[in-house]
Amino acid sequence: MTRDGQPALRAAIVAIGNEMLGPLRQDTNSLWITTRLEELGIPVVRKSIVADDPDAIGRELSFVATNAALVFTTGGLGPTADDVTVPAVARALGLALSRNEPYLASMRERFARRGIRMPTVNEKQADFLVGARVLENPRGTAPGFWIEQDGVEYIVLPGVPSEMREIMADRVLPKLKERAGQAVSRRRVLRISGMGESAVEELVSAVYEKWKEDPITILAAPGEVQLHLKTAGLAEEAERRLDAMEADFRAALGARIFGRDEEELAASLGRLLRGSGRTLAVAESCTGGMVSALVTDIPGSSDYFLGSVVPYANSAKRDLLDVSEETLRVHGAVSEEAARDMARGARARFDADLAVAVTGIAGPDGGTPEKPVGRVFFAVEDRDGRSIAKRRDFIGDRPAVRRSASLYALELVRRWQERLEE
Amino acid sequence: MTRDGQPALRAAIVAIGNEMLGPLRQDTNSLWITTRLEELGIPVVRKSIVADDPDAIGRELSFVATNAALVFTTGGLGPTADDVTVPAVARALGLALSRNEPYLASMRERFARRGIRMPTVNEKQADFLVGARVLENPRGTAPGFWIEQDGVEYIVLPGVPSEMREIMADRVLPKLKERAGQAVSRRRVLRISGMGESAVEELVSAVYEKWKEDPITILAAPGEVQLHLKTAGLAEEAERRLDAMEADFRAALGARIFGRDEEELAASLGRLLRGSGRTLAVAESCTGGMVSALVTDIPGSSDYFLGSVVPYANSAKRDLLDVSEETLRVHGAVSEEAARDMARGARARFDADLAVAVTGIAGPDGGTPEKPVGRVFFAVEDRDGRSIAKRRDFIGDRPAVRRSASLYALELVRRWQERLEE
Repeated sequence: MTRDGQPALRAAIVAIGNEMLGPLRQDTNSLWITTRLEELGIPVVRKSIVADDPDAIGRELSFVATNAALVFTTGGLGPTADDVTVPAVARALGLALSRNEPYLASMRERFARRGIRMPTVNEKQADFLVGARVLENPRGTAPGFWIEQDGVEYIVLPGVPSEMREIMADRVLPKLKERAGQAVSRRRVLRISGMGESAVEELVSAVYEKWKEDPITILAAPGEVQLHLKTAGLAEEAERRLDAMEADFRAALGARIFGRDEEELAASLGRLLRGSGRTLAVAESCTGGMVSALVTDIPGSSDYFLGSVVPYANSAKRDLLDVSEETLRVHGAVSEEAARDMARGARARFDADLAVAVTGIAGPDGGTPEKPVGRVFFAVEDRDGRSIAKRRDFIGDRPAVRRSASLYALELVRRWQERLEE
Repeated sequence: MTRDGQPALRAAIVAIGNEMLGPLRQDTNSLWITTRLEELGIPVVRKSIVADDPDAIGRELSFVATNAALVFTTGGLGPTADDVTVPAVARALGLALSRNEPYLASMRERFARRGIRMPTVNEKQADFLVGARVLENPRGTAPGFWIEQDGVEYIVLPGVPSEMREIMADRVLPKLKERAGQAVSRRRVLRISGMGESAVEELVSAVYEKWKEDPITILAAPGEVQLHLKTAGLAEEAERRLDAMEADFRAALGARIFGRDEEELAASLGRLLRGSGRTLAVAESCTGGMVSALVTDIPGSSDYFLGSVVPYANSAKRDLLDVSEETLRVHGAVSEEAARDMARGARARFDADLAVAVTGIAGPDGGTPEKPVGRVFFAVEDRDGRSIAKRRDFIGDRPAVRRSASLYALELVRRWQERLEE
């Protein structure tokens, strides 16, 4: 709920595409746009999904314009025959289309740079709406458009999420921000990993009570728990209030909070490693590369990440990580001993300051009464030979176990760095 | 793009609820309803989300009724002040509301059985739309309604997914099925990787033309292109028709089609490796573990996957994969030569039948005029020393480059297995 009255600027979002009317695809762009608009105090009053059909698009635009002053469309700007958004918008708003030759030439050049001849179907992406502001698309060939007509603004965006987001961030949101003026709504997310929702709730119940006039939500996400703080008011005052709320939550949770807002666990861990000048190596069996993939998802991770080994076969555990024959024979590849051997081996092979190892049973097969599906062993070892090992039993199917185990491995290294676990 | 004519029965879905217009909640009911309706051959032509606001609901219903003969609403039937769907529908359709005393008594009883006095706010859930068929809700207090007016049917359902699904399954779908008769709608998805949307379109244009009476959609997804074939009719006849369509597309595309329906690229590759009895090892730098993570996502992948090395640091390329000093000095870590060395090293270290290597520049930093962000080299080598190498320039941000490169690595091994590339 916004606390202001009827805001001056109300937005509607129209997602265009047959595929989103079928059972396989969900529109996700509107969620991102909603979040960004909420930050500017602009409420979304309606979302809809229509087919790649000029009549349906035209009817939809006329209808939404009666109730929103900002109309966003996403999708239908591609090169194929079913991409009809631009001509449909032209017809609905009575605008002409004109082929932009310089743009066409730049498109051809872009293809040529990649060594490809531009297919003829792409030419129509150079058909511009006459009278519209063109929103350049650095990531793709389809530009967006911004048209004002009869007091309603239409912002026509591509459906590819990365392209839509970049155009919004660079060319749309800054302009809307100028206009939005003083009152804003602000949200802040505090993120915790390695513990459950109720355990977090117990630690923060007094803080909840103190800030009960502000909407605080606790949400469980895969491998983490999020606290969503929200407040409204003048920008500075709202930020101060969020700062005070955050300080109270930090007093209750300490370094258990790994990050804020968009900061992922791997980014938080990367920040700590970079700060301490330590390097990391990984040995991961049941997670099969996911730990390393999460670490290297972060730009600049080569500053602290040396590499990993995924020793899926037992021979690889022996040959590439020096896991001992005896460990494999006596304790098995899924054991605390194997995890410790793997961490030691990876640390030495990569000459890293710190190594983490994961070995477990992701399922659906391979479980036994002694070692059920979901059981995973972890170990961390550092250059001085200090080490810890942990056992966890995760619930869920194969993807859930692998994901939970990967995030727990990162959290274990983070806690080691924060001296929460030693 | 759908190419069908105008089906007799077209549906629209209106989700009602303020929370779905915020950044935290997505409407998911409509996906379930769409799937069930598609099975009956009833297409969903429009989906929308509106606020808990009588005016907005009324406008929406008038609008959708112009274009769909079946209008589903979900949500807004609860007891709280913001649940206004029933009075809003009554006003929009000019129906009276009448309190149903026997139902009210049964609600009170239901609460009493749980030892609770029914809150006064719940009373309004006994206000029934006069002239509507009541859809009993065994899981909750809010019943649904089915109203026919001026040739349009309105089906008013609760928003709680379990309640909505049970009412649909027990009281709505059986009636719609009777009406739909024997006719069903069937969908099949053919999946292609390693080539672009327009390149696929060029190869299949004659097949498109042949089947132009059936709706065929071509969709670009990350790292792949999908052909969605859809047809309607009697069940057996529809399947036969899809088989014939698929045969024509296979004649045009051959082994470029890696899978059908839910089969992922990694599963398709796994099927080929298992069939040929070959084992695989991976060496991946810029993809940082994603190739291995995709391979091991498939249950039973330990039958053919031996493991991988992620040699993020150059020292790891040398020490763990025997990439030569000369290669690194003369050509650099991102080069065809390095990819070939990595594939050779991984094949030997894991004693695998086949190895694939990936090295490139994922960005955002690290690009140069000679080696821009997005450039990735790939190599495959087998036990007999036969090898290939490829260079690709991917567009997009770091996650997009990494994902495209990971899928391309899998596709390259798949094509090697299928003898499409040697």
